[in-house]
Amino acid sequence: MNVKEPPMAEKLTPEARAAALADLPGWSQDDNRDAIRRRFSFKTFNQAFGFMTRCALVAEKMDHHPEWSNVYNTVDVTLSTHDAGGLTDLDIKLARSMNRIAEG
Amino acid sequence: MNVKEPPMAEKLTPEARAAALADLPGWSQDDNRDAIRRRFSFKTFNQAFGFMTRCALVAEKMDHHPEWSNVYNTVDVTLSTHDAGGLTDLDIKLARSMNRIAEG
Repeated sequence: MNVKEPPMAEKLTPEARAAALADLPGWSQDDNRDAIRRRFSFKTFNQAFGFMTRCALVAEKMDHHPEWSNVYNTVDVTLSTHDAGGLTDLDIKLARSMNRIAEG
Repeated sequence: MNVKEPPMAEKLTPEARAAALADLPGWSQDDNRDAIRRRFSFKTFNQAFGFMTRCALVAEKMDHHPEWSNVYNTVDVTLSTHDAGGLTDLDIKLARSMNRIAEG
């Protein structure tokens, strides 16, 4: 029996990236890397870390993880796919999930 | 009845800072700010975010919060006391707690 490897995520074409970003409120292209980023702002640390915790569960289930930082009520997120060396559909999926979580 | 404000945390003297850092394995003075920093490395994202979650509960209880970033299994932490404009005993206490949590 052959066991297939999961398909490698492939880097998005410029057209696919532009289309995806147009449908991802708050996210923008990172100026320095093949990545997207967004700042999420909340009222409190409790809300910011609660957001991070919900995102962490989603990320772990996807086996695709954000680069992120937190200062009190703010969470800065950068998404890119290390194995692919750039932005893939995995990043777009995780970004959509994070937006949904932030909306509560 | 007079209600007292909680005492303001005061910036540590250079002597107090040096003594505190000598007793804080892994932490060092930030080169650019009046702050201390440490990188915590784990085996997995699960462990890294579990560490962050335990630290978040401690920080929230102290009402003193870290500046931190996470990339997969690594957590970079910077501690400083915004209200005091530099390093205070609150930072040393939180750093000690984070070290204890990292040791499991």
